[in-house]
Amino acid sequence: MDSETLRRYLEKTFRTKIPITLAMGIRVLHYDGTNLVLGAPLGPNVNDKGTAFGGSLFSLLVLAGWGLIHLKLKEEEIPGDIMIHESSISYALPVPDHWEAHCQFPEAPGYAHFLEQLRAKGRARLALEAQIMVGSQVAVSFRGSYAIVGKQF
Amino acid sequence: MDSETLRRYLEKTFRTKIPITLAMGIRVLHYDGTNLVLGAPLGPNVNDKGTAFGGSLFSLLVLAGWGLIHLKLKEEEIPGDIMIHESSISYALPVPDHWEAHCQFPEAPGYAHFLEQLRAKGRARLALEAQIMVGSQVAVSFRGSYAIVGKQF
Repeated sequence: MDSETLRRYLEKTFRTKIPITLAMGIRVLHYDGTNLVLGAPLGPNVNDKGTAFGGSLFSLLVLAGWGLIHLKLKEEEIPGDIMIHESSISYALPVPDHWEAHCQFPEAPGYAHFLEQLRAKGRARLALEAQIMVGSQVAVSFRGSYAIVGKQF
Repeated sequence: MDSETLRRYLEKTFRTKIPITLAMGIRVLHYDGTNLVLGAPLGPNVNDKGTAFGGSLFSLLVLAGWGLIHLKLKEEEIPGDIMIHESSISYALPVPDHWEAHCQFPEAPGYAHFLEQLRAKGRARLALEAQIMVGSQVAVSFRGSYAIVGKQF
């Protein structure tokens, strides 16, 4: 599958498997094999101060990491369950409308080690970082540790 | 206002000010002046594994802390904005249906210091812990640091 097909596949996966993403209006904006960008409108995710609700920002970030791993496993043809294990989040700036969550896959050595662990033991963990940008500034920083359990092992 | 009136007031605040709580089906189940319990059904918050989505669990926990501070400020008649500043979350067990988030206010000395800071400086921070229980076991642990800015200062 090419990147555009995978982008559309992930958007459909969110909507059918994690239905709250539909109420939140989450979109998969970009995927190029290394970077994943998700977006959501302010309307359904607004808080009492007229900015984005912290829980919705967390959801977008945790899904950015989950989605990136999901697409890489699909590319590698490894069926597996991906579960968030622990995470931390830091909110530096209020987030107005037009927000995006950016998540990048780790450098090649880290990814190779992850795949090796997953293939050898049937399970592995992977830590990812993701950010919400407001203009050129990082408004929210997220770090998540995901546990992956292969289904065919 | 008595505790039952405050419980209903908070539920209405969530629905009108943070509308995603309506899509998530969040309820305010209990408030006694010290403990706040929120609940949500699995249906709209389900994930691809048939358990509760990690983002929805985070949202319920961050709102438990936010709601507890909101009610205390109302009792103290201090109008203020409450913002999540940073937090960490640890997922130990998958969460099936009938989940509740429990948040407890800190002991008296910590609370007195917080009020003193807020009254003297117009702003203060407060760290709260909250948990999601599955039976007698802690399934998800949350710690959040909230920034409070008084409106009348």
